[in-house]
Amino acid sequence: MAIPSAISRRAVSLHPGGAADICRALPEEVPVAIVCNGTSQAVMMASPGDIADFAHGFALSEGFITSLDQIEAFEVAEHDSGIEARFWLRQGRAEALAARRRFMAGPVGCGLCGIDSLAEAMRPLPQVRAGLGLSRAELIRATEDLRAHQPLHDQTHATHAAGFLVPGQGITHVREDVGRHNALDKLIGALARQGVDAAGGAIVMTSRLSVELVQKCAIAGVPVLIAVSAPTAHALRLAEGAGITLAAFVRGARAQVYSHPIRITNEVPHVA
Amino acid sequence: MAIPSAISRRAVSLHPGGAADICRALPEEVPVAIVCNGTSQAVMMASPGDIADFAHGFALSEGFITSLDQIEAFEVAEHDSGIEARFWLRQGRAEALAARRRFMAGPVGCGLCGIDSLAEAMRPLPQVRAGLGLSRAELIRATEDLRAHQPLHDQTHATHAAGFLVPGQGITHVREDVGRHNALDKLIGALARQGVDAAGGAIVMTSRLSVELVQKCAIAGVPVLIAVSAPTAHALRLAEGAGITLAAFVRGARAQVYSHPIRITNEVPHVA
Repeated sequence: MAIPSAISRRAVSLHPGGAADICRALPEEVPVAIVCNGTSQAVMMASPGDIADFAHGFALSEGFITSLDQIEAFEVAEHDSGIEARFWLRQGRAEALAARRRFMAGPVGCGLCGIDSLAEAMRPLPQVRAGLGLSRAELIRATEDLRAHQPLHDQTHATHAAGFLVPGQGITHVREDVGRHNALDKLIGALARQGVDAAGGAIVMTSRLSVELVQKCAIAGVPVLIAVSAPTAHALRLAEGAGITLAAFVRGARAQVYSHPIRITNEVPHVA
Repeated sequence: MAIPSAISRRAVSLHPGGAADICRALPEEVPVAIVCNGTSQAVMMASPGDIADFAHGFALSEGFITSLDQIEAFEVAEHDSGIEARFWLRQGRAEALAARRRFMAGPVGCGLCGIDSLAEAMRPLPQVRAGLGLSRAELIRATEDLRAHQPLHDQTHATHAAGFLVPGQGITHVREDVGRHNALDKLIGALARQGVDAAGGAIVMTSRLSVELVQKCAIAGVPVLIAVSAPTAHALRLAEGAGITLAAFVRGARAQVYSHPIRITNEVPHVA
């Protein structure tokens, strides 16, 4: 298989109607391997666009790197079977990652017992202390504003988006993917690669809010997380603990704020 | 943390409305480690219910086991940090799994290069040859029928469900989870543990259809996969190749059939 474009068109049989066929746009999905210094770290299914943003965001979210300075070289290689995103990390970082992998990799697999791997999944999160102020007016229209920046979803009705909302400037960056976690990693990677401080805005998601989405925001230093649908109770506990303002069910000019409401203000936004 | 029940109730600030607080039911989410013969194989965030079904379905879907006969013992252990699902596999199987893990586990991590791990993610699927016949009438009401069996979603509006639809009998089994992949693994595990042949019915999902959902159905031998929302183009190619009938956008008494329409019939179902 050659790497497909983001969308494929396919014939469909409709029921009721039987013989009536239409042509429908479907989002593509390809396996993407994140490779550091020659060793595959993870494979994810993702939309085949913004792969460099995705790889950088994933590497930051997963702690493979803590800063882009630790990358010596990066390239994307397309194969019949999928996409490789290849990092070469600088010597100190490559050794730190190898040591971490050696600790985790025993003779029969990851080497972690169940209790160790549960602790690894729930590792402590950094505190987000950014003093962002987002007006109530900007909050309640956040997901509707994001909706205007989703070309892949416009065609397929089947992809998620993550947007970066800067007070007074609106949605400044958007990334789309078939997976909500990938969309956020793509956005975090795009911000990092463009030198935009993630502490200066809110993340807006078209999805529900899972533990992993809160973890990624905390590691990136994002102070406000907004979603069109519900958080899990555990995601909310993590947001409370990490100092993140979490707003959910933001739709139809309404919002529900679940944690750290202090960043939601009555002020009219300053329009830049 | 003690392992929570499936739902937690939390106070919320509403906007606009400011001070008006409501109490909202949120779905819980806990880390679950799948452990085989003392070694953790994977950790997933999941809804804390039907954990034995989940573990068995995941072990089958991932190929840790190919039959429940290979399990010598199983137990669920609850910890402050999450849940361990512990398998002890019979000697032949334990050695096969350890050998597979040794192959994958080099000195610095999984040991796979990017190309190898892309191939592993896209490993060939078994052919599904079951000759199930599902009437058009049952197909177009499948997701509406499933909707009547989602108690967790009724309270939280934030969880997915996987249902097993038997021609002439309706939805016979349902499992719910915050994640769609987990909901399907729970259902596959429940069917296997109850001795129900997955070739005798259709899987109905509340979600979109990803590559992984088609892979799980092919490995379980499910002939028909029905979803309320869209498939990805790659998921559709896999379903075509594996001989699975894929129907999507099944809602409002309409359905779109994307592959192997031969199993959708005009016959009135035989009511058992």
